[in-house]
Amino acid sequence: MDMTQVKTSKTSLLNGIRDLSWEDRSVPAPGPFEVRVQVQRIGVCGSDVHYYTHGRIGGFVVEAPLVLGHEVSGTVEAVGEGVTRLKVGDRVALEPGIPCRKCAYCKTGHYNLCPSMHFMATPPVDGALSEWVIWPEDFTFAIPDSMSLDSAALLEPLAVGVWAARRGGVKMGDSVAVIGAGPIGCTTLQAAKAAGATTIIAVDLEDFRLDLARQLGATHTINARTEDPVQRIREITSGLTGLPISHGGVDVAFETAGSVPTCRMSLEAPRPGGVTVLVGLPPVPEVALDIVSAASRETDIRGIFRYANCYPAAIGLVASGAVNLDILVTQRFDFGNTPEAFVFADTERARSMKVMIDVSK
Amino acid sequence: MDMTQVKTSKTSLLNGIRDLSWEDRSVPAPGPFEVRVQVQRIGVCGSDVHYYTHGRIGGFVVEAPLVLGHEVSGTVEAVGEGVTRLKVGDRVALEPGIPCRKCAYCKTGHYNLCPSMHFMATPPVDGALSEWVIWPEDFTFAIPDSMSLDSAALLEPLAVGVWAARRGGVKMGDSVAVIGAGPIGCTTLQAAKAAGATTIIAVDLEDFRLDLARQLGATHTINARTEDPVQRIREITSGLTGLPISHGGVDVAFETAGSVPTCRMSLEAPRPGGVTVLVGLPPVPEVALDIVSAASRETDIRGIFRYANCYPAAIGLVASGAVNLDILVTQRFDFGNTPEAFVFADTERARSMKVMIDVSK
Amino acid sequence: MDMTQVKTSKTSLLNGIRDLSWEDRSVPAPGPFEVRVQVQRIGVCGSDVHYYTHGRIGGFVVEAPLVLGHEVSGTVEAVGEGVTRLKVGDRVALEPGIPCRKCAYCKTGHYNLCPSMHFMATPPVDGALSEWVIWPEDFTFAIPDSMSLDSAALLEPLAVGVWAARRGGVKMGDSVAVIGAGPIGCTTLQAAKAAGATTIIAVDLEDFRLDLARQLGATHTINARTEDPVQRIREITSGLTGLPISHGGVDVAFETAGSVPTCRMSLEAPRPGGVTVLVGLPPVPEVALDIVSAASRETDIRGIFRYANCYPAAIGLVASGAVNLDILVTQRFDFGNTPEAFVFADTERARSMKVMIDVSK
Amino acid sequence: MDMTQVKTSKTSLLNGIRDLSWEDRSVPAPGPFEVRVQVQRIGVCGSDVHYYTHGRIGGFVVEAPLVLGHEVSGTVEAVGEGVTRLKVGDRVALEPGIPCRKCAYCKTGHYNLCPSMHFMATPPVDGALSEWVIWPEDFTFAIPDSMSLDSAALLEPLAVGVWAARRGGVKMGDSVAVIGAGPIGCTTLQAAKAAGATTIIAVDLEDFRLDLARQLGATHTINARTEDPVQRIREITSGLTGLPISHGGVDVAFETAGSVPTCRMSLEAPRPGGVTVLVGLPPVPEVALDIVSAASRETDIRGIFRYANCYPAAIGLVASGAVNLDILVTQRFDFGNTPEAFVFADTERARSMKVMIDVSK
Repeated sequence: MDMTQVKTSKTSLLNGIRDLSWEDRSVPAPGPFEVRVQVQRIGVCGSDVHYYTHGRIGGFVVEAPLVLGHEVSGTVEAVGEGVTRLKVGDRVALEPGIPCRKCAYCKTGHYNLCPSMHFMATPPVDGALSEWVIWPEDFTFAIPDSMSLDSAALLEPLAVGVWAARRGGVKMGDSVAVIGAGPIGCTTLQAAKAAGATTIIAVDLEDFRLDLARQLGATHTINARTEDPVQRIREITSGLTGLPISHGGVDVAFETAGSVPTCRMSLEAPRPGGVTVLVGLPPVPEVALDIVSAASRETDIRGIFRYANCYPAAIGLVASGAVNLDILVTQRFDFGNTPEAFVFADTERARSMKVMIDVSK
Repeated sequence: MDMTQVKTSKTSLLNGIRDLSWEDRSVPAPGPFEVRVQVQRIGVCGSDVHYYTHGRIGGFVVEAPLVLGHEVSGTVEAVGEGVTRLKVGDRVALEPGIPCRKCAYCKTGHYNLCPSMHFMATPPVDGALSEWVIWPEDFTFAIPDSMSLDSAALLEPLAVGVWAARRGGVKMGDSVAVIGAGPIGCTTLQAAKAAGATTIIAVDLEDFRLDLARQLGATHTINARTEDPVQRIREITSGLTGLPISHGGVDVAFETAGSVPTCRMSLEAPRPGGVTVLVGLPPVPEVALDIVSAASRETDIRGIFRYANCYPAAIGLVASGAVNLDILVTQRFDFGNTPEAFVFADTERARSMKVMIDVSK
Repeated sequence: MDMTQVKTSKTSLLNGIRDLSWEDRSVPAPGPFEVRVQVQRIGVCGSDVHYYTHGRIGGFVVEAPLVLGHEVSGTVEAVGEGVTRLKVGDRVALEPGIPCRKCAYCKTGHYNLCPSMHFMATPPVDGALSEWVIWPEDFTFAIPDSMSLDSAALLEPLAVGVWAARRGGVKMGDSVAVIGAGPIGCTTLQAAKAAGATTIIAVDLEDFRLDLARQLGATHTINARTEDPVQRIREITSGLTGLPISHGGVDVAFETAGSVPTCRMSLEAPRPGGVTVLVGLPPVPEVALDIVSAASRETDIRGIFRYANCYPAAIGLVASGAVNLDILVTQRFDFGNTPEAFVFADTERARSMKVMIDVSK
Repeated sequence: MDMTQVKTSKTSLLNGIRDLSWEDRSVPAPGPFEVRVQVQRIGVCGSDVHYYTHGRIGGFVVEAPLVLGHEVSGTVEAVGEGVTRLKVGDRVALEPGIPCRKCAYCKTGHYNLCPSMHFMATPPVDGALSEWVIWPEDFTFAIPDSMSLDSAALLEPLAVGVWAARRGGVKMGDSVAVIGAGPIGCTTLQAAKAAGATTIIAVDLEDFRLDLARQLGATHTINARTEDPVQRIREITSGLTGLPISHGGVDVAFETAGSVPTCRMSLEAPRPGGVTVLVGLPPVPEVALDIVSAASRETDIRGIFRYANCYPAAIGLVASGAVNLDILVTQRFDFGNTPEAFVFADTERARSMKVMIDVSK
């Protein structure tokens, strides 16, 4: 290895709850089928903030210093042996999870469920809040000139939305409800629209989120503080189909807020034969659900775990203008102000959408 | 109308809880696209027994005398104008629900969800516990000579099993668990086997049901009194796939017992990416479920409501020998002993499978 | 029946090749579940022109005077008994085919394949080139105020495009090629875009059609007079995926031109594992095809026959602005000038898109 | 590397047309995630025979000595680093193709279309007609004690049948036609039966093949020398559905004979809305097809190229008794008589099914 190729990478570490520090790490030359990427943008995800404030998410516990950040864009600086699709200088987005490529899940295309998944910023795997990262070529995607580096980083939450829309089976002409209009709600809403939904109902508690949802394509908005979402959803949709109110409901409902009431609501929002997609997850061991009613209405309930094979579609959607990610960035911080970014993301969540860290600054 | 064609039909009525009586009713000649059927066999379903013992099922309340019976076979005795597929003398099975044929559900092939469904033995629609029935030609199916009239009546619970297997998406080589090995469990198990399942795990509390399940194709049986079904299911299946026990579980789990513990169990039985089909329904308004775990394992939860377009396949399965329905009949009663049949079905459920009423006797 | 309700309906008849005449016909009051519609617009379809110029299409021969026209919008003027979804004054589009509602195709949602289909302007069934039409409520669709009557008539060719996109399985982020950019090509292209296609390649021989295709969302256009479409399609798409040129090709190719060379081309346009949808059909008994190559690339070949359950989605797409139908109307004729409309549509096809007859004038 | 671990492997080479020779090759110890397998059985495939008689298949030309054989079973003799699913002594079947694991096809589960596929006995990749083979753990499958080594080798042609049945979408109660009842026809037929087909029509020119097909589950057989297969298929199936003969036809037709007439026949065998699966491929550049009729009947035409993810299902089917592979072996040769085996397979094809080489002898 040519030692001149080793890079010193300034890196942000989470040592424990609300305890961030800096460290210089060595990043070697890329190995075969790998590229070395100069990181440019990192979006701050709710899970990053949760590790920052709680030191854990469920069974994943921060026991050694952890690098956060898995919404990543950058520039290819070096390519390893065998790399053919990428070249030095390419602007890229990194899909943050690398599966084993060999188990039954990987071979059948469901690599998001691979038991050996190596996923950024999930203990003990480090994320990308640093200057340099080595990554496999096939999980590194070149983006077109027209796409911003901010958007490229946000392909990650868009991939979640694309996966949610796919799992929901959204089709041309469908009606959908998106319960929760935060960053994931907004990418899910746009993905559902891109998949052909023509009636799009956004539900939230905050008007500023609903206003954004409307800008992004919502045809109806419901503030759950002032209206009963399920009742309204059934009225809107039975008006469209001419079916009785008992058979009202959307084709697909997406729960993205991660609370118990919205989880329960999401089971009542679809029409008979419709689908509920659980994107957010309430932080409780069990939820009391009227499963009998959902089952006898043949409402399918489907969760999502990350995503598989969504980056190419997500890139196409942004490049074609079908999805707008730049609009989601409400605050920006330089890399050196990463601690301030986390304080902000933690304390001001109610009035912000997406916090972006510019690693190039 | 030729009055000589009017038939007097001895009919069994449910007047209230445990209150059956007889009445003679007039059955006219069949109208256009209808046939008149001489009823031969009626299988007693759990829902018939529930109306008998409780006078209601959920919102469906017996407010006027109701004719029970929706598992029906018979012989065509007269055909109305326009009938082409059937002729006098044909042995037939009756699919007991007639949809509106015009709503969005009917037009897209999901007629089981039609809001205007007319379904036998569901108040206020009468069932078939009588000597003569008029029925539309297109919901009346000729059966081959090789099929018994008992089997023809039991095509109805088999249709439930076929629908459950379809909804579960059972494929060649799949592993399935059938939780509850009663009549519906046994038709579901056989349908799953017919759809290609090669690892079939039956779970019940009664060994005589598990013995029958094994005869019908179960490769493994678990008595839940003595073993932990979820643990065993994960061991059996992770042994097959070579995946870690955390990724054990069947491709498709069917809950057919209709209790809270089995409902909860059915969500833990599938592998990540697997499917739970809720066939039985616990008689409670809500069930506390670990929905977060199910969602983040991408376990799809799907209920069923009756079935659509299952009779032709069910006939094929019985005719080809893939499914055995005759074996499910454990007790037989003559039509005149219908009251005794209901007393038996109510009190001896724990030691019987299917009670059959022979209307021809 | 109240005879005052009988309407005299001026009607255009096709008596034979290029032989149109007028007749006054009586239109009675609507029967149960029917509506009477005052016809407003009729789009002229290629099949109408073909009956006009040849007196037949394949086995369908004009043997008695035939009313042409199956792209129909109008206003509800009277409703029959039992009609609940529509009321007098509703602006509506008519789905022109009525299936039997009873056969296996109808019950499974594939009513377009019903052997007893009654389809407008297909001998011996009359079309709608007249002032009044009786039609079943459930194949008559109310349109929103924002939709023009022209667009409502053109929901019919849009339904073809929606069906083609569904049959092709177009998904978010897909690449598609639309070979032939006439009226059906343009509705197919827009439906594919609405279903999520982000790379859309239009192929035609006429630049004015390609210009329109680009306006409607084509990202690339190929004039087959000057470029090799298959070669260009493979270059464009392998650039996107990073796969070798041998694995270039679109996810879905639509043949809408109905010629032998484009039919052959359409089999070479998809990537391995892609789909060819044959929308247009070459007027020849057999076509020599490299079926071995298509089969060993696992290119699925799928035809379409009309459509099923596409009107609701088509209405949603136009109402939401995802599809523009008004732009397709290039010539307009008053009802009284119907003969001129047919002469124009026959002789000027190369420079027109859609001819619209305004029956209200 | 421990040189004591190097094995000398007697190997059969194809040097040119009908020119086989022997060579001793060195086989090293298995690398990481690899196993070394003592080969036990090799089934002779039609493609092996074609390389033997023609020196090429399409663009794949034998330019250097080639080892034939890709239907392989054996015993694990050594395991490399990281191997966890297999251990020394395991009886195994080898899936003969190794994909790149990194391209869009591999990541989405369609690895059979991987442009970098490394497939046994396809120039320039060697097959397994030798004593020892190194193979990746994840394409090496342990078989149960109950399965013979013959059957294990024949999992390869069964994988083709399983893939054909999956591609055809065979479901419970379906009717299928299998055109050509050779080895691939017989595995396809059994796979279709295992997937739920209940009406199974076999077509061939040889009665001994049809007799075998009937033993394996065919419900009807047609000798194409004496009956018109399409006519008979439409009669049989329209009798089942009650639809007119014009709408007769099977749900899925499989062409496995690889000739022009059967290819044409296979497009006429399905009902409207049915599927044709092209498994065999006629050795001609183009076939004249009535594609217009197929398209306007919405008959989907699907080819297959090898298979993906079929070994686990195939193992389950044989282990459960749903499929019988041993019955297909009609001749056996010891390894030393490999040249005789090829002469036999070439000259006696009309009266044999599967030739098996026992490498252990």
